[in-house]
Amino acid sequence: MATVKLFSDAEAEANPAVKAVFDDIRATRKSDFINNIWRGLANDPALLKRTWDSVKAVMAVEGTIDPLVREMIYIAVSTANACSYCVHSHTAAARARGMTDVQHGELMAIIGLAAQTNHLVTALQIPVDKEFQVAG
Amino acid sequence: MATVKLFSDAEAEANPAVKAVFDDIRATRKSDFINNIWRGLANDPALLKRTWDSVKAVMAVEGTIDPLVREMIYIAVSTANACSYCVHSHTAAARARGMTDVQHGELMAIIGLAAQTNHLVTALQIPVDKEFQVAG
Amino acid sequence: MATVKLFSDAEAEANPAVKAVFDDIRATRKSDFINNIWRGLANDPALLKRTWDSVKAVMAVEGTIDPLVREMIYIAVSTANACSYCVHSHTAAARARGMTDVQHGELMAIIGLAAQTNHLVTALQIPVDKEFQVAG
Amino acid sequence: MATVKLFSDAEAEANPAVKAVFDDIRATRKSDFINNIWRGLANDPALLKRTWDSVKAVMAVEGTIDPLVREMIYIAVSTANACSYCVHSHTAAARARGMTDVQHGELMAIIGLAAQTNHLVTALQIPVDKEFQVAG
Amino acid sequence: MATVKLFSDAEAEANPAVKAVFDDIRATRKSDFINNIWRGLANDPALLKRTWDSVKAVMAVEGTIDPLVREMIYIAVSTANACSYCVHSHTAAARARGMTDVQHGELMAIIGLAAQTNHLVTALQIPVDKEFQVAG
Amino acid sequence: MATVKLFSDAEAEANPAVKAVFDDIRATRKSDFINNIWRGLANDPALLKRTWDSVKAVMAVEGTIDPLVREMIYIAVSTANACSYCVHSHTAAARARGMTDVQHGELMAIIGLAAQTNHLVTALQIPVDKEFQVAG
Repeated sequence: MATVKLFSDAEAEANPAVKAVFDDIRATRKSDFINNIWRGLANDPALLKRTWDSVKAVMAVEGTIDPLVREMIYIAVSTANACSYCVHSHTAAARARGMTDVQHGELMAIIGLAAQTNHLVTALQIPVDKEFQVAG
Repeated sequence: MATVKLFSDAEAEANPAVKAVFDDIRATRKSDFINNIWRGLANDPALLKRTWDSVKAVMAVEGTIDPLVREMIYIAVSTANACSYCVHSHTAAARARGMTDVQHGELMAIIGLAAQTNHLVTALQIPVDKEFQVAG
Repeated sequence: MATVKLFSDAEAEANPAVKAVFDDIRATRKSDFINNIWRGLANDPALLKRTWDSVKAVMAVEGTIDPLVREMIYIAVSTANACSYCVHSHTAAARARGMTDVQHGELMAIIGLAAQTNHLVTALQIPVDKEFQVAG
Repeated sequence: MATVKLFSDAEAEANPAVKAVFDDIRATRKSDFINNIWRGLANDPALLKRTWDSVKAVMAVEGTIDPLVREMIYIAVSTANACSYCVHSHTAAARARGMTDVQHGELMAIIGLAAQTNHLVTALQIPVDKEFQVAG
Repeated sequence: MATVKLFSDAEAEANPAVKAVFDDIRATRKSDFINNIWRGLANDPALLKRTWDSVKAVMAVEGTIDPLVREMIYIAVSTANACSYCVHSHTAAARARGMTDVQHGELMAIIGLAAQTNHLVTALQIPVDKEFQVAG
Repeated sequence: MATVKLFSDAEAEANPAVKAVFDDIRATRKSDFINNIWRGLANDPALLKRTWDSVKAVMAVEGTIDPLVREMIYIAVSTANACSYCVHSHTAAARARGMTDVQHGELMAIIGLAAQTNHLVTALQIPVDKEFQVAG
């Protein structure tokens, strides 16, 4: 149902630029599984590489935000952007990183509440308090 | 610029239902500051109370998700929903809970990347991998 | 395809907190049918209860806005938020409350026109007329 | 701050295609006031005319949906699309058509609740109940 | 799965107002194929006609923007609005107008980048540079 | 009003990683003007560099899509994402690349129409025609 072909493993093998990224995904994740976003992006090897490099730079680094928290933030954005695939893939990733059912429930509550107050604030056109503004 | 009147402290004092919520906000937060969302919601005391009760139940509890992380998730949703006020207020709240500039930068990177892949996936209409689906 | 288990009737019966909400949904609606949103929210009984209590407080009350109109407004928000499930469930609810095909057509026309002018106004960055602003 | 010039009355007078639409807006609304969206759309007289004709056909007709309800639905869509101008202009229009503060509060509650459940449903990826589907 | 009946060819033939639009779609496109959006809109013949007239006026005219570019812009909006059907139909239309795989890849890259910077700018609440503002 | 400090030229000069990107922006654009998005992203030099590198790779290359068309697509996405800053900056960029008032009007018409049909299709939940689906 995609708007592009999803590259099979054989098709990826046949394209050196695609193969290089798929190999790096497998090595980085220590798993043979390549999920569909990469198979779709393979139609444009430069976009595939840039996107994967960004994912590595942002999601796979040692940083100050915990890896599980990164996935929760990703779920939050993906939900508000109504991206079904992204909600599925990052919920799976969060679970793989240890998200419990209780944490998932709390995440849902925060996302739902934020959406509610986002809409209330927009409908009421609440002006930003001066206390919240960073000096220029 | 709001579409409703923002209740002053005097107006809030004069309405017992509004006063009760404002008092509870001040007591819960141990601060005299009431930000504008509550002054706008005061036009409907029942909605004001329900919204504040939800915020207390979701954001102010001892839970499994860290208070700072809750604010980061709130920022993520508010950004994708393009709610200027909410981005301001929850960025201020995150900073009040200790968010560093480095953490803020990492949060920005995750939000930006998620938005990018959300749009790529939607434009390519990538089907959900069966590996991501929870059994019925 | 959900990211969580959907509670069966047997599973709901086995959890007193879930059972209490399901019983109340059935009693309030005078119907045995429990739709999937509640079966998904059952994974977090506190969130299930809070959400159902909000639905009762907002949608099932005697108020100044007609019950059918409430469903139409719900459809409008759900459409703009691209929530397929919500569009389906609230269109069904609106029909159950008497929405005719003619009314549905008019609703579609309003939603489509609003989306069009929303985008035109945003693309042109039209400033708010002073006549539309509520005095501070 | 618009991305286009806003036509003054003098500029509108000087362009027959713009003048014709402005005259019709004034005659239809029985008011001399032309709000900024029309002054911005005047940069493309064909788009101005098509948009105004749509507004007349959808919002100004005798139909089965009450004029005030039409404005409420417009506010709902505009809120979810985060269109500040549209929220302002249609809240003013709803008030002009008799919306009370109590009705406005109820509208806010519905919009907020819808946004909350929209996001919960998307984050949980709840499948549509077969009961909600229209036969093919 | 639609919320309305999709008109079959026989049902369209039986309704003169619907038949007139379907005939015009076929004549304009020089194709017998009527895609589902028109079959759904047929439930409200006036909305069907207005929408088709708008599509003809905006998409099928000789203008200063190339027909293929028009489809690319349509894909961009539809992606950001998370409209699966629209992404599918306008990607097919763009291909029918000659969009190559390389162009599609470039389009994806632009859409993804725009979404990323849209979210960064909103999360940072970057003020508009005075250089970007059109004089009043 | 930003949620972060906007780097002045002096502050940028004092940070070698920021200075390197600002120098490249000026050299690439052959202009001394640095707009606010870069001054805000400077708070995280790595994010600043990655974002600028992406902009160069996507927007400043010789490709198959015309530079002016790239800006129009950017405006389309930014409008649907309700990003005021981005609409302003990319409308200015499109004008700098030669966009005429007539082209801008046509762009507005396409964006408005797309938004309208996006919402109609979502509200009607129109299923994707099999003719639009790419074989697996």
